Amino acid sequence: MSSNLIYVIGAGGLAMVFAFWKTNWIEAQDEGTDRMKSIGKSIADGAMAFLKAEYRVLAIFVIAVAVILGIANNGRADSSVLISLSFVVGAVASGLAGYLGMKVATKANTRTTHAARTGLASALNVAFTGGSVMGLSVVGLGVLGLGGLFMYYTNLYGMEAENMPIVLNVISGFSLGASSIALFARVGGGIYTKAADVGADLVGKVEAGIPEDHPLNPATIADNVGDNVGDVAGMGADLFESYVGSIVGSMVLGSSILVASGFDINFVILPLFIAAAGILVSIVGTFMVSVKEGGDPQKALNIGEFGSSAIMIAVIYFLIQVFLPESFMQAGEKFTSMGVFYATVIGLVSGLGIGMVTEHYTGTGTPPVMSIVKQSLTGPATTLIAGLGVGMQSTAVPILILATAIVGAHYFAGLYGIAMAALGMLANTGIQLAVDAYGPISDNAGGIAEMAGLPKEVRERTDKLDAVGNTTAAIGKGFAIGSAALTALALFAAFMVQTGIESIDISKPMVMAGLFVGGMLPFLFSSMALGAVGRAAMAMIEEVRRQFRDIPELKKALDLMKGKDEKDWNDEERSDFEIALGKAEHGRCVEISTQSAIKEMVLPGILAVTSPVIVGFIFGPETLGGLLAGVTVCGVLMAIFQSNAGGAWDNAKKMIEEGVTINGETIGKGSEAHKAAVVGDTVGDPFKDTSGPSLNILIKLMSVVSLVIAPLIA
Amino acid sequence: MSSNLIYVIGAGGLAMVFAFWKTNWIEAQDEGTDRMKSIGKSIADGAMAFLKAEYRVLAIFVIAVAVILGIANNGRADSSVLISLSFVVGAVASGLAGYLGMKVATKANTRTTHAARTGLASALNVAFTGGSVMGLSVVGLGVLGLGGLFMYYTNLYGMEAENMPIVLNVISGFSLGASSIALFARVGGGIYTKAADVGADLVGKVEAGIPEDHPLNPATIADNVGDNVGDVAGMGADLFESYVGSIVGSMVLGSSILVASGFDINFVILPLFIAAAGILVSIVGTFMVSVKEGGDPQKALNIGEFGSSAIMIAVIYFLIQVFLPESFMQAGEKFTSMGVFYATVIGLVSGLGIGMVTEHYTGTGTPPVMSIVKQSLTGPATTLIAGLGVGMQSTAVPILILATAIVGAHYFAGLYGIAMAALGMLANTGIQLAVDAYGPISDNAGGIAEMAGLPKEVRERTDKLDAVGNTTAAIGKGFAIGSAALTALALFAAFMVQTGIESIDISKPMVMAGLFVGGMLPFLFSSMALGAVGRAAMAMIEEVRRQFRDIPELKKALDLMKGKDEKDWNDEERSDFEIALGKAEHGRCVEISTQSAIKEMVLPGILAVTSPVIVGFIFGPETLGGLLAGVTVCGVLMAIFQSNAGGAWDNAKKMIEEGVTINGETIGKGSEAHKAAVVGDTVGDPFKDTSGPSLNILIKLMSVVSLVIAPLIA
Repeated sequence: MSSNLIYVIGAGGLAMVFAFWKTNWIEAQDEGTDRMKSIGKSIADGAMAFLKAEYRVLAIFVIAVAVILGIANNGRADSSVLISLSFVVGAVASGLAGYLGMKVATKANTRTTHAARTGLASALNVAFTGGSVMGLSVVGLGVLGLGGLFMYYTNLYGMEAENMPIVLNVISGFSLGASSIALFARVGGGIYTKAADVGADLVGKVEAGIPEDHPLNPATIADNVGDNVGDVAGMGADLFESYVGSIVGSMVLGSSILVASGFDINFVILPLFIAAAGILVSIVGTFMVSVKEGGDPQKALNIGEFGSSAIMIAVIYFLIQVFLPESFMQAGEKFTSMGVFYATVIGLVSGLGIGMVTEHYTGTGTPPVMSIVKQSLTGPATTLIAGLGVGMQSTAVPILILATAIVGAHYFAGLYGIAMAALGMLANTGIQLAVDAYGPISDNAGGIAEMAGLPKEVRERTDKLDAVGNTTAAIGKGFAIGSAALTALALFAAFMVQTGIESIDISKPMVMAGLFVGGMLPFLFSSMALGAVGRAAMAMIEEVRRQFRDIPELKKALDLMKGKDEKDWNDEERSDFEIALGKAEHGRCVEISTQSAIKEMVLPGILAVTSPVIVGFIFGPETLGGLLAGVTVCGVLMAIFQSNAGGAWDNAKKMIEEGVTINGETIGKGSEAHKAAVVGDTVGDPFKDTSGPSLNILIKLMSVVSLVIAPLIA
Repeated sequence: MSSNLIYVIGAGGLAMVFAFWKTNWIEAQDEGTDRMKSIGKSIADGAMAFLKAEYRVLAIFVIAVAVILGIANNGRADSSVLISLSFVVGAVASGLAGYLGMKVATKANTRTTHAARTGLASALNVAFTGGSVMGLSVVGLGVLGLGGLFMYYTNLYGMEAENMPIVLNVISGFSLGASSIALFARVGGGIYTKAADVGADLVGKVEAGIPEDHPLNPATIADNVGDNVGDVAGMGADLFESYVGSIVGSMVLGSSILVASGFDINFVILPLFIAAAGILVSIVGTFMVSVKEGGDPQKALNIGEFGSSAIMIAVIYFLIQVFLPESFMQAGEKFTSMGVFYATVIGLVSGLGIGMVTEHYTGTGTPPVMSIVKQSLTGPATTLIAGLGVGMQSTAVPILILATAIVGAHYFAGLYGIAMAALGMLANTGIQLAVDAYGPISDNAGGIAEMAGLPKEVRERTDKLDAVGNTTAAIGKGFAIGSAALTALALFAAFMVQTGIESIDISKPMVMAGLFVGGMLPFLFSSMALGAVGRAAMAMIEEVRRQFRDIPELKKALDLMKGKDEKDWNDEERSDFEIALGKAEHGRCVEISTQSAIKEMVLPGILAVTSPVIVGFIFGPETLGGLLAGVTVCGVLMAIFQSNAGGAWDNAKKMIEEGVTINGETIGKGSEAHKAAVVGDTVGDPFKDTSGPSLNILIKLMSVVSLVIAPLIA
């Protein structure tokens, strides 16, 4: 089958061609008015400026780690200096995927706004196409990179059983590269977006009393840039990491399987073929997302997402039948190919299940969100307590699903089954990510409509687009957390295979100590992320206040807005206001967000990368195993808790803003309850967009670091 | 040595005599004015009403569990129906300790107020003496119960190696009884106190604008009752559980130790003697707490606490030298008696260390608390984010201390060492708890001064007393969490000894699933506690609002207070006001708190008790081991996070209320920053007094349940 690997490469290439084609299509769309163009350009420039600054720092990090990896693995029989090559390729692939996705997302936003001037359907089309470029770039580069490296290394070392440890060890460098970039993209992007958001809201909306996304607010552009760097590039890097990690994890575990004739390479390459097939299914899925004018956009996205999941199950069944023998031995136990199929399906279904629970706890109008709305009547304190309670409670069912998935997948196909479950969740990442990235593009489109002063119905259409994406986004978040957990466990199992340790016994005090310290890391990591957002937001607040105070045109315009209704302005006032619109120094705010994010991402990054190395080298693989178990369990719990609390506060606020009736009394914008809900939402913002999602990366990264250093500490 | 057990019983009896003597002394003190007497009586009646209602529910629970335990253990060779007897004795001992402690605390409060009319030193004396009754009752009943039962069972079964499993299994029932009561006392007490507190604050202080503890507020008495049921009885039951658990854990682990001549009973009874000696040291310690008028009360408490710790170390050294042979074998490894001593000291020092970290993160004027104060300048959202970040960050160092203690204690004395470390932390519980209980007595004294309309300087003195208790209370909280963790681990190790399982291997999927589910339980448990406080507080808010609306005298008095300064009132107004003072229906509020607390404590209680039973019987001891590890790690982390976040918010608010200067600007009561800090404090209240401390119990209870069912699932 190995000669067929060219099909894998082909599928990766096809994804890139598809992404290129869709990019061209996006570029051919109309950008709208000059004002829209200029706003769009500011956002695109800001986003690129951040990427450049981020990649400059990352380049140093990547080179340094590559050199260290090379030195550490030089002249060893069980590993190779080539791991540095994989690492660099993985890092570049992740960086490139982020670059391509964001480049097109910042083109699609203005074009979505323009399309929304004529109708909802065409706007959906532009936004979703923009998202699909991100989705296909991620899976395309992942499959190209892994497939290409695997072909190269097997040519070099051979494809026999005895070559697999070294081949897969050098391959794991790719996963490490992807994880490293993901960490900084998620943490840096998360800090960027929330600093800008909190800064823009607190001074603009609360202090100055001007609407969201108003062009007078100097933090507005930074806020919109943040949606791109956080929700597009950050989310993309996160899923890229999971995707690659689950493939690598299953390849490593596949290499330890024996059939009647001994080793069977098909178990190792099956994950690559499933991923390749997933690309084709995702491309088919993008064509299923279409809506006529007046049709239901939610339905269109659902058809794309669930339809492609169904096709994926059929394709996986077919591939497993073709690739795997009817039965095989793993760690002394007998399993069947159908068992592998069941394990994969368990993964996919669990992902959907966790997604649906996420929707239950965070969706508009659901009982948990309503409970927060009710508590907002008695002020911010009770709103906060209710939201924290909802977030904690929301961990219960996802964890039970996850526990069942672990036990079920293992029952059907051993450790290989757990890895395949992760892969099953991630097989159609292409379309999943397209739907995820569609959200921030619509969000941006709304911001541009507001800033460009377009008619109200344009904003209403983009808001509708945005709302439609919410349910699918909630499911996407569930997928991201669930797949992170299973991927981490797959990498964890792969780590055990590579180190050759047989058990991780928590009755040993060193392992128990590792478990405690590992469990503590997500708390420490979250506190760093929250602290970073706080400091960055404070810098932003001071800058916006300074501009409102020191730029006379801005000050005048703000006073005018406060003093008189717009329709009563005279011509001079109107012209002064027009002049003021160009005076806000957006660039300064973009710079502050960029600098803060870059500065603040370093410490948590170092914590994540170095702790497994330190523990592994000083205390050995079993203690490191305890550390990984602790970080995975607490990381998943804290991620679910923070993401869902944040999501629930967000929608509780949105419900009140749309007006909601409780005990016969209608509460809406401007009420005391609304103010309380805004406090909840502001607390929830860094929870759900910075500290929570960063933990997904933390758990995978620490596992992959351990996997990479496995031969060195075994 | 076994005939010497009578000394253990004697020490327990001495503690009770001392408690009785101090109670008489308290009763001989003057209660002050008639108004003070009547307020004191209301508080005492409310507290007793709660205890009665609670114990009525608990009686049913205790009888039911005793019957189930009896049936399950009937006719078995490795366990006995007598476990039901131990269980009932443990439950009654814990209940009695709570009753005695609270009885005297509710006598000491008015007498402390009265003493504060003359001076600080005599007030300290009364408050501390009140606390020492609680402290000595807890250790006295613990040692009497355990010592008595051990004497009885060894007479019955014999003292040889082969009798130890059954003797120690039936003894473990005592620990289960203590844990069960502790759970309900902590959870129920925590809900009670916070429902009353939040209710009193939100309607009284915020809505009606009257000062804290004002007699017009119908929730005031309930609020003061809450301090007693939550902070006195709840804390007492918590430490009683830890104390008993650590003794039982070390006895079980001591039974698995071998010396040259085979089994040595001294390892089993040494914990009892250390506990007995701890009683004498605690009594000595109470005499060290004395302050002359004008002296420093903080210094007095410190001398008592640290002085007795130092004596305790010397006493433990002496006892270990007398009881233990120079070297011994445990699980195939050789250890020394000096190793046991080092392990015990590690425990004591770790407890102090964790306490000092707690003080660093929650103390007035410390950098973390100052960071919250600064963030309060930009409103409640940033205050909340900062506090959550501080709480999460505060887990780092205590966990590192704990991990080091686990590894260190095990290095010096194996699993026995871990149990002895827990015992080392808890050896002078008597004095520790006296200092802890002193806090709420002073707090109550302040409330009574306010309600009785005493001169301002009385309240100032009680406030000073209260503030002095804060540092020692922070250290006490650290002790409570640290000892809970070590006790849970000791019980966990004892559980492994009793089931005979050799390893708990997290690379097995069932164990990993157990770890995940166990880790989730503290989140679910906390969400239940937070939800319960929310619902109970809401009921309280509605009742207070109803009284303010429907009782005409109250309404009139409130309007008067708002409308006119007190010095401008005419005689008629003054007399109306006097009449109104008697009109608030405090009893209704006490009843609501009681009913809510009793109702809401049941579900989390059942969750805690049944989950280890279900997992143990269905999935076996190793999965249960995974569950216990998960609940312990996440439970400790969530307990530290919530307790410290709450403590930090509390003191940030207090700092602002006392006036604090930031960037040259002084902020104080009534400022926007103060309002933000009040929101933080209100969120932190259930964190630090309900959900956080309840987790201490959860982790111990689940371990002791597992230990008790160990023979049944082995």
